[in-house]
Amino acid sequence: MKIVLLRHGESQWNKENRFTGWTDIDLTEKGFEEAQNAGKLLNAEGLTFDIAYTSVLKRAIHTLWSVLDEMDLAWIPVYRSWKLNEKSYGDLQGLNKTETLVKYGEEQVLLWRRSFDVRPPELNIADKRHPVNEDKYSAIDKSLLPAAECLKDTVERFLPYWHQTIKPAILNHQKVLIVAHGNSLRALVKYLDNISHSDIVNLNIPTGIPLVYELDENLHPIHHYYLGDAEQVKQAMHAVANQASKKD
Amino acid sequence: MKIVLLRHGESQWNKENRFTGWTDIDLTEKGFEEAQNAGKLLNAEGLTFDIAYTSVLKRAIHTLWSVLDEMDLAWIPVYRSWKLNEKSYGDLQGLNKTETLVKYGEEQVLLWRRSFDVRPPELNIADKRHPVNEDKYSAIDKSLLPAAECLKDTVERFLPYWHQTIKPAILNHQKVLIVAHGNSLRALVKYLDNISHSDIVNLNIPTGIPLVYELDENLHPIHHYYLGDAEQVKQAMHAVANQASKKD
Repeated sequence: MKIVLLRHGESQWNKENRFTGWTDIDLTEKGFEEAQNAGKLLNAEGLTFDIAYTSVLKRAIHTLWSVLDEMDLAWIPVYRSWKLNEKSYGDLQGLNKTETLVKYGEEQVLLWRRSFDVRPPELNIADKRHPVNEDKYSAIDKSLLPAAECLKDTVERFLPYWHQTIKPAILNHQKVLIVAHGNSLRALVKYLDNISHSDIVNLNIPTGIPLVYELDENLHPIHHYYLGDAEQVKQAMHAVANQASKKD
Repeated sequence: MKIVLLRHGESQWNKENRFTGWTDIDLTEKGFEEAQNAGKLLNAEGLTFDIAYTSVLKRAIHTLWSVLDEMDLAWIPVYRSWKLNEKSYGDLQGLNKTETLVKYGEEQVLLWRRSFDVRPPELNIADKRHPVNEDKYSAIDKSLLPAAECLKDTVERFLPYWHQTIKPAILNHQKVLIVAHGNSLRALVKYLDNISHSDIVNLNIPTGIPLVYELDENLHPIHHYYLGDAEQVKQAMHAVANQASKKD
């Protein structure tokens, strides 16, 4: 059984080097091109899908739509959930990383960005950026909506969705595509490959390159690989790793 | 309670004057513009949606996507079902109307297009255009998939979906948008307004103009109206009525 994970293409705030998190920022033109190219890579590999899962953030949804159009699969069922959202960067959302370094110091910013269990500063409950104040989350139990998240929090809200919703579909022989975010996908990969809290820090998922996981009948990974030209994939991962030293 | 019905924008085969039915033809550039304009009209009316229903045909799905983007609602749940598909034109699908008139005569073509209960010629089960041979319908019970449909057939497969799926959402106070097709929407309007078999022949729904139904607590229509400039709506309905004498 195979599943495919895909990180959305470049967003406007990726480009502007700003913390994004749950802020609903759209793809750049380059981001849309990355998404179309992902669809082409999936076609070239002869893959198809029965069902797709994505977040409620438009950079992921638009990436998915572009992929589905490229594969002539706009008709398959799509399920959106906030549980696939990016890690919430809390009160850092919208800030430029350079500004943030100046304000809080490099060591603190590194902890917020890369540690497994240190949360960034929380959004005030009255802040209009807090998800309790967004229409999009009005049907969700307010106590579940984060004011800020570390990767551990992201793991803890994504994994129940994996177990209760995505896994049963895979076990029911549905071919599954998941289009999500750098950190929600790292949360899943950490679980699938049983990566330690310290090693996950070094795992970077490039934008717009399909990541195929082959799973056994117990949904344990047999192996995984990125689609596309190996050298290009290597460069893209390298670029993300380098980016990570400058921005998230 | 309000629901909004929307017929997809102009498709390539609308433009080419060909019978489309279940053939999965995309929007023209004008069709995409009509869809965006529908989103603008809905915004101007101050409407919003919690949930959307559409067919599994890309001219409807792409119309919906354009509307959702225009309204910044890409995140709402979307349910696709073949039960909202256009009436199947069976073996006529792909034919130019002029060719069809030459082949079968005007009287016969009018019966296939406009009568409530005369089916167009059926697709052979081995025809690759028959839905039993399309991946898209592989999970559907083959005995339900039509070789051709009259409006009566379309009513009979759409109404159960209305009663079992859409109505409960409305009664649960969800704001519902339905993006579908000329004949699947005529099927619904016929039921809602209790229009006779003979009168439904004269009902034309223009492409890309939101049709708002206000319903009482038993979901009986109080009244309905198209959004937008009244004169433009009148012209669009007139254009559809005129088209109907030339094409479907």
